[in-house]
Amino acid sequence: MDSSKRTELSEIGEFGLIDRLKEFLPAKSDKVIKSIGDDAAVIRTDENVFQFISTDLLMEGVHFDLAYTPLKHLGYKSVAVNVSDIAAMNGTASHIVVGIALSNRFSVEAIEELYTGMKLACDAYSIDLVGGDTTSSRSGLGISVTVVGEGREEEVAYRSGAQVNDLICVTGDLGAAFMGLQVLEREKQVYLANPEMQPELLDKEYIVQRQLRPEARVDVIKSFKTLGLKPNAMIDVSDGLASELLHICKESNVGAYIYEDKLPIDPMTFDTAREFELDPLTIMLNGGEDYELLFTIPQADYEKVRNHPDISVIGYIKSADEGVNIYTKGDHLVPVTAQGWNHFKA
Amino acid sequence: MDSSKRTELSEIGEFGLIDRLKEFLPAKSDKVIKSIGDDAAVIRTDENVFQFISTDLLMEGVHFDLAYTPLKHLGYKSVAVNVSDIAAMNGTASHIVVGIALSNRFSVEAIEELYTGMKLACDAYSIDLVGGDTTSSRSGLGISVTVVGEGREEEVAYRSGAQVNDLICVTGDLGAAFMGLQVLEREKQVYLANPEMQPELLDKEYIVQRQLRPEARVDVIKSFKTLGLKPNAMIDVSDGLASELLHICKESNVGAYIYEDKLPIDPMTFDTAREFELDPLTIMLNGGEDYELLFTIPQADYEKVRNHPDISVIGYIKSADEGVNIYTKGDHLVPVTAQGWNHFKA
Repeated sequence: MDSSKRTELSEIGEFGLIDRLKEFLPAKSDKVIKSIGDDAAVIRTDENVFQFISTDLLMEGVHFDLAYTPLKHLGYKSVAVNVSDIAAMNGTASHIVVGIALSNRFSVEAIEELYTGMKLACDAYSIDLVGGDTTSSRSGLGISVTVVGEGREEEVAYRSGAQVNDLICVTGDLGAAFMGLQVLEREKQVYLANPEMQPELLDKEYIVQRQLRPEARVDVIKSFKTLGLKPNAMIDVSDGLASELLHICKESNVGAYIYEDKLPIDPMTFDTAREFELDPLTIMLNGGEDYELLFTIPQADYEKVRNHPDISVIGYIKSADEGVNIYTKGDHLVPVTAQGWNHFKA
Repeated sequence: MDSSKRTELSEIGEFGLIDRLKEFLPAKSDKVIKSIGDDAAVIRTDENVFQFISTDLLMEGVHFDLAYTPLKHLGYKSVAVNVSDIAAMNGTASHIVVGIALSNRFSVEAIEELYTGMKLACDAYSIDLVGGDTTSSRSGLGISVTVVGEGREEEVAYRSGAQVNDLICVTGDLGAAFMGLQVLEREKQVYLANPEMQPELLDKEYIVQRQLRPEARVDVIKSFKTLGLKPNAMIDVSDGLASELLHICKESNVGAYIYEDKLPIDPMTFDTAREFELDPLTIMLNGGEDYELLFTIPQADYEKVRNHPDISVIGYIKSADEGVNIYTKGDHLVPVTAQGWNHFKA
């Protein structure tokens, strides 16, 4: 590498960096089926069994604000978002290890609150917390979670498996976590201006919960088995629908059409977006942290999902030369662009 | 938990916290052979194959100082110390995932320096970097590394396996990494006082290298196989010999006698300790980050190690009621106490 050059991270962004690293770090072992660049790495452990591994690093002030994030919820969320990465491979999480860096301002009781949340999530998802590292931090709280899971070779859903004419599906509803965050940020500002004010969160419970304590959609993964359904491609919605759809299209070398009127949104998300004078469509496309699943299935499987209460069909996979576009309600065809969460631009 | 109580972390320390968490988080799956409390967690993956997993979180200002730590060495070290945890189980590391949190002050080239060091270590230890997470940090650099490895059930060496009358062995030499750190800190102070001064590190190369770029003793693990040797108990020396020996004794419910004149020290470590007016024995017992292996073997295996250039026999395992003691050169019997690295007291 040319050490005299200085490239700013903001020039290439997180995804640009990942692309560079992927090229720089080719796997040596033929047991490594999928390295950098999917929701989890995939390793062959047995003739037919694949192991998944994924890691997340959550930093105070970037990923969470302790002014409005209860430690118990934070613990729950840090586990759930990792389990979601394994779900996105159509796999089953089995265990996690956790690293915590924290300063003296945390009491033992506070740390146990954090671990209580983790334990609740481990119990909810039937996984074990098997080890970790606890250390000090000179500044904020840092939490790293690494999750291990497994699945059968023929069941794994990569980002790269989408086929032309596939139906594009998404679980649950979109944009709620982002609007929950806006509400929490507003209440924080109100509180900072006047500590006597009580936060007005009562009628925002659903979206605030979506932000503070999201769930991994392991329920949907289980129902795939019941339905006899295997997605061709899958990813979880952590950075926003637009960004994730572009990942699938890029990795699968396809295009896509999606339809605004098919995108699922909760009325509370919609109303709150309007209250904040934000465009609900933008929120659905670019609001992150929903941890819903975005996946594609063959058209022949339509009957299996059409009556599923938690699955919406939102469009079709097209050939790559047709691009990635959305039909808006006004019947305009608009290219989907990734806004995502480019932390480095902030 | 009683939320009205506030217990300071400094009251119970890192090990006290781990003990509390171990009790609080019992494993649900019978595949979890060893959870929190050894160098790595142990999971059964097959009839005879155990998988190991271990994680470390390294924080700027606590674990490393970028004033004198080249990013390439930091990358190498962050991998090596994790591989060392798998070696300490008598296992073989196979792959890692890495989380990096960093601020805008790092250029893409700087991050690639860090990954270049990780790649060098991955190549040296024949492992693959298969995935990760890259995010921003509001303050310092944070690095999380999680390593996965495996071993055969009958070969695993736990902390808890030491038997009365076992020989206590240690690889390489002790205290070098700690004295290397003292030299680097001194040169940093000199530089801060007068930036024109050139650092005097030339005649301290070995101990500085032990601090900045330690190696995991996978060479010793390999030689165990050649020698037909299986340690009864093993741990790697990350917090200092005293602390690690106490871990083995506590987990195995035994005592130990070790001998000062048997403890291996490099002349440069000894001379530098004297130069800093530090007691070489204290450095050997409590200097951390050597990443040597401390292990116990049956006396019948003495012939296998007596001529090994990298293994020193330093004492015997005793029954628990005899305590953990060291015979000093003056023939005094002194209890071994753990100083270790209680980050939270700093």
